[in-house]
Amino acid sequence: MTLTGKMLIGQQAVAGDREAIRGLDPATGNRLEPPYAGGGDAQVNQACALAWAAFDSYRETSLASRAGFLEVIADEIEGLGDALIERAMAETGLPRPRIQGERGRTCQQLRTFARTVRAGEWLDVRIDTALPERQPQARPDLRQRQVPLGPVAVFGASNFPLAFSVAGGDTASALAAGCPVVVKAHSAHPGTSELVGRAVARAAQRCAMPEGVFSLLFGSGHEVGIALVSHPHIKAVGFTGSRRGGLALCRAAQARPEPVPVYAEMSSLNPVFLFPAALQARGEALAQGFVASLTQGAGQFCTNPGLVVARQGAPLDAFVAAAAGHLNGSPAQTMLTPGIYEAFTAGADALARHAQVQRVASGLPGDGPNRGQAQLFVTQAEAFLADPALQAEVFGAASLIVQCRDDAQMRQIAEQLEGQLTATLHLDDADLDSARALLPTLERKAGRLLVNGWPTGVEVCDAMVHGGPFPATSDPRSTSVGTAAIRRFLRPVCYQDFPDSLLPAALGQGNPLRLRRLLDGEREA
Amino acid sequence: MTLTGKMLIGQQAVAGDREAIRGLDPATGNRLEPPYAGGGDAQVNQACALAWAAFDSYRETSLASRAGFLEVIADEIEGLGDALIERAMAETGLPRPRIQGERGRTCQQLRTFARTVRAGEWLDVRIDTALPERQPQARPDLRQRQVPLGPVAVFGASNFPLAFSVAGGDTASALAAGCPVVVKAHSAHPGTSELVGRAVARAAQRCAMPEGVFSLLFGSGHEVGIALVSHPHIKAVGFTGSRRGGLALCRAAQARPEPVPVYAEMSSLNPVFLFPAALQARGEALAQGFVASLTQGAGQFCTNPGLVVARQGAPLDAFVAAAAGHLNGSPAQTMLTPGIYEAFTAGADALARHAQVQRVASGLPGDGPNRGQAQLFVTQAEAFLADPALQAEVFGAASLIVQCRDDAQMRQIAEQLEGQLTATLHLDDADLDSARALLPTLERKAGRLLVNGWPTGVEVCDAMVHGGPFPATSDPRSTSVGTAAIRRFLRPVCYQDFPDSLLPAALGQGNPLRLRRLLDGEREA
Repeated sequence: MTLTGKMLIGQQAVAGDREAIRGLDPATGNRLEPPYAGGGDAQVNQACALAWAAFDSYRETSLASRAGFLEVIADEIEGLGDALIERAMAETGLPRPRIQGERGRTCQQLRTFARTVRAGEWLDVRIDTALPERQPQARPDLRQRQVPLGPVAVFGASNFPLAFSVAGGDTASALAAGCPVVVKAHSAHPGTSELVGRAVARAAQRCAMPEGVFSLLFGSGHEVGIALVSHPHIKAVGFTGSRRGGLALCRAAQARPEPVPVYAEMSSLNPVFLFPAALQARGEALAQGFVASLTQGAGQFCTNPGLVVARQGAPLDAFVAAAAGHLNGSPAQTMLTPGIYEAFTAGADALARHAQVQRVASGLPGDGPNRGQAQLFVTQAEAFLADPALQAEVFGAASLIVQCRDDAQMRQIAEQLEGQLTATLHLDDADLDSARALLPTLERKAGRLLVNGWPTGVEVCDAMVHGGPFPATSDPRSTSVGTAAIRRFLRPVCYQDFPDSLLPAALGQGNPLRLRRLLDGEREA
Repeated sequence: MTLTGKMLIGQQAVAGDREAIRGLDPATGNRLEPPYAGGGDAQVNQACALAWAAFDSYRETSLASRAGFLEVIADEIEGLGDALIERAMAETGLPRPRIQGERGRTCQQLRTFARTVRAGEWLDVRIDTALPERQPQARPDLRQRQVPLGPVAVFGASNFPLAFSVAGGDTASALAAGCPVVVKAHSAHPGTSELVGRAVARAAQRCAMPEGVFSLLFGSGHEVGIALVSHPHIKAVGFTGSRRGGLALCRAAQARPEPVPVYAEMSSLNPVFLFPAALQARGEALAQGFVASLTQGAGQFCTNPGLVVARQGAPLDAFVAAAAGHLNGSPAQTMLTPGIYEAFTAGADALARHAQVQRVASGLPGDGPNRGQAQLFVTQAEAFLADPALQAEVFGAASLIVQCRDDAQMRQIAEQLEGQLTATLHLDDADLDSARALLPTLERKAGRLLVNGWPTGVEVCDAMVHGGPFPATSDPRSTSVGTAAIRRFLRPVCYQDFPDSLLPAALGQGNPLRLRRLLDGEREA
């Protein structure tokens, strides 16, 4: 499986004509072959034109054939074998088990969306039959289904080179919805992107999908990314990455003659609230769980617990001491890119220099470039409330513990937080009332609330919400993980008094797709 | 029932301190009493603070009590009796049967949302139960429900002084979702707004709702409107009106530190495609139906048929002649405001002056101010395709007939249209293939597609879509009419490993609300 360094515009391998990107092994600092010459407007235009040409036929593929396509993508990714694992390890510094696990998750995600497509609930069919005798006016026959928005631009994330990249959650849910996808590969893992992109293209060919259903572009985010989001044939955008990057895409999407939705997952501290009885009863276990969650994958998770809020006192002191002990012994880990490593170091240093913040632990130093040392900080509630800079996400294994006087101050901190992906409560029975009082605030602030768990680890299932109020995401009405993610790429259309021969199958007389449709206010069996 | 000229901030009648607005009878040009002194930042802040204070308790009202509140609002509006009808007639120039019908629609809409709230499907509960034995990792218990976004700013529409104003569709769906509402009254019908606002406030009091659940502000759109949309406690916006107004609100909402969704319903031509066999078989009936739809309510409907597209030839000539005949005899009608009348006249005059456009009919002149004369124009496909200005909406009873060479040119026109609320096809059996070929384009362009009907008349039901791609609306993923409108004001939250005692009732063990929840991928009975 030789890497070509080329983009994929439909089935066509196309060489870029702009500055080249190269993968880099962050563990060694070595550049990887081949170079990936970047694309420009010409390739963006070609990919979008092809996606547009594919849209009308792809969106009317049968549920079975679209589901089959997703499954064949998973098969093709598995078929890449160890070449994929090794390239992804080399480009990310992530260890083999993590990349293997992520490949499993990626393929499971595609297969889960295949099941979702087949089940067809996402079509959300609603039928109000005609009432020709109704007074003062007859009611026409009205039938609603969901249709896909159109071609979707997907931006791969650096921290999930498989599960949230070329064939990750955004791509899987957009394809499931019936939207062709144009991926802008993340420049940190171009070889991984090419391998997966070719797997998707092969699947499209095997399944006889229209050619433009998938394209893969390389190039600078500013050039290719903004051109893609600004292209009139792109009708929605999926992005996971930094707040700055996400906001730039949002601005570009809003500046279009026809603005389009951007689903940007950007920034989250994932606050953890430790309640007194739980702290008292199992501070040591909590400290261990906390440090494990914080340092997993060098802390490079969107749901990394970057903030701990608890009542001051001996139990919290014991927790801090225990956590510091674990963290002081934690090995340095290779971070994804030199840029991420530098931003982490800069963010942690800024916390360390803050007059009101105390560094209480630092992981072992590393041997080689880009090795992130975990960091633990403590501050007082007053200081946290007084300085919005302490709410800045430090992407990586750094966390800030905020000591509060009482429940009221914990709530005050919760109220002052920006929007979050997650909020976690650790509690025992004696803490239930305090926790209950905090819930209304947390429900307003976060997309997922956890009790006695840790926020890293995001299950792909029906009930998952990986989303939340701004700036966790640009659109709190959605999730980017789980089967409900398909809704991001849909819109409703109503058909009034259509003859059966013109109706889409989902809406037809006799319910040919056997959906549980809402028929005159009742669910069909 | 004396009008006070005051705003309502919760239960408090508050006088504004800015320039006063007065109602105006467009049929006579007479100013109406009392003056409504406008609000400013102080009142916006008060109303938003009160709405925010009400949010946590209002959103956790039981389904039954929230539904009851909506029903009591309907009762209170009916209780206003003839005073409401007469004031609305005076402020809008609309005839009694229309206002009475609209009151019925408004109350039915509130009661429909009450049923929707009670049924609880909108909570969209999804549960994935724990799999503690799963390898390599246990699955936690995950439960998702929809929660309301927060206080909603609603902007009343001029053309539906009841059904899309103070207690109209936006307010009803936001209250149904659990969102407090702050209404900015439309300056064209302040007295109607006060009457309905006081009905809502009385209902809130009768139902012991938290005071801030509803407020009503008067004032200039630029001052009060932008302040409202920019207020940090407002979490979503509903608007029906002009493209310029809607875009100004979208910009304000995007410029906030925390951007919020705006649901603006703005502008639509509502193209009607007449196919040859239908034209041949019943051109006269089509002409009659068309003119009736075009002139209804002085053409002041969002779904007014402002564009007709058909193949040139004798049948179309006969249709144009018949439509011109009906339209030439149609009486002038009082329009809603002098501003709307002037914009209509200016728009129609611009069409009349266009070198490639021919005026083929004009309604009877009126007797008194603000009387709109219906207008019918004809142009060729080439001219329409060449000049985007011919796609500008002329709000009122004006329509442009575009003559095409063939099906391909009809499709070309459809492709070039901006987003629409509706698109209509008139067809006979012999037209089915032509119509089928056009459908993929129309599905991409419009929120509602009709066969052999007219787009005016928007049913309030489960299957309705009153929405569509930009610039028909600012968000094609939604509808502002029908029960699905509730979704605009919701977002998902996931609860992970919550003890039953902390779970909201909708998610609880044993399904206490008896919802049809998605449980491990299957619907509960």
